[in-house]
Amino acid sequence: MATTKLLGSSCSIARSLGVLGERWTFLILREAFLGATRFGELRDRLDMASDVLAARLATLVEFGVLAREPYREPGERGRDAYRLTPAGRELEVVLGALQQWGDQHLPWPAGPTIERVSAETGRPVHVGFVDEDGREVPLDRVRALKTPAYPA
Amino acid sequence: MATTKLLGSSCSIARSLGVLGERWTFLILREAFLGATRFGELRDRLDMASDVLAARLATLVEFGVLAREPYREPGERGRDAYRLTPAGRELEVVLGALQQWGDQHLPWPAGPTIERVSAETGRPVHVGFVDEDGREVPLDRVRALKTPAYPA
Repeated sequence: MATTKLLGSSCSIARSLGVLGERWTFLILREAFLGATRFGELRDRLDMASDVLAARLATLVEFGVLAREPYREPGERGRDAYRLTPAGRELEVVLGALQQWGDQHLPWPAGPTIERVSAETGRPVHVGFVDEDGREVPLDRVRALKTPAYPA
Repeated sequence: MATTKLLGSSCSIARSLGVLGERWTFLILREAFLGATRFGELRDRLDMASDVLAARLATLVEFGVLAREPYREPGERGRDAYRLTPAGRELEVVLGALQQWGDQHLPWPAGPTIERVSAETGRPVHVGFVDEDGREVPLDRVRALKTPAYPA
């Protein structure tokens, strides 16, 4: 369930967490990015309870991260598949940032299980801050400023 | 409390969420990035229960995101302040990615409350994928690949 208190916040981190911050949600998205679209597939890959999965999927559909798409296998009843919307695909940068931090600071003995590469060059990419000309800005050269919309 | 099951995962998203995924944790980090260091300050800014705050801070210290630093005000008992470590400061890219997504897809009527700029140019920066030469790679040109460490 989306958290109404967070969704009403002036802070966009809080609002994002209102939709994404429930337990399991990021792992559902991970599986969606790896190609899972069906309820049973998500439930089995994540080994999670059907009612919790149904609730998380409903929130993600409600807020436009996933879209329902009806399908029917021969001889079975119609079901819904779940596909990332364009807004959902933009979450790859959030997942990438979590992944990068975990790979660096909570390493797995065998090393990273996923790597991201440029389709052009096949060389690794990472998540970082970028200026309007598409050049990376090092973390220590980034300043966070309160805007006039910041609550008094 | 860190979630042991997540921490033991081969997936670095799951491990990161084992440390960061509890309710409140990202908002505590937001306040740390905005300069809050003291327990009372965090509790008052976030309007959260002391026992929950103490538990979240203990996890963040345990996993090297925050460091405890003793201080003493004249005439008071010694207390601990909490400062972001270098590993903690690297989470700015995770917070920035959550913020950017919330500003775009769950907008606040008055607009974003925080903006990030380059210290060099004063111009806005955003979070994105970057190649080894420091050039942005558009989202639709990024491919996620399973490595040999990916569980069978």
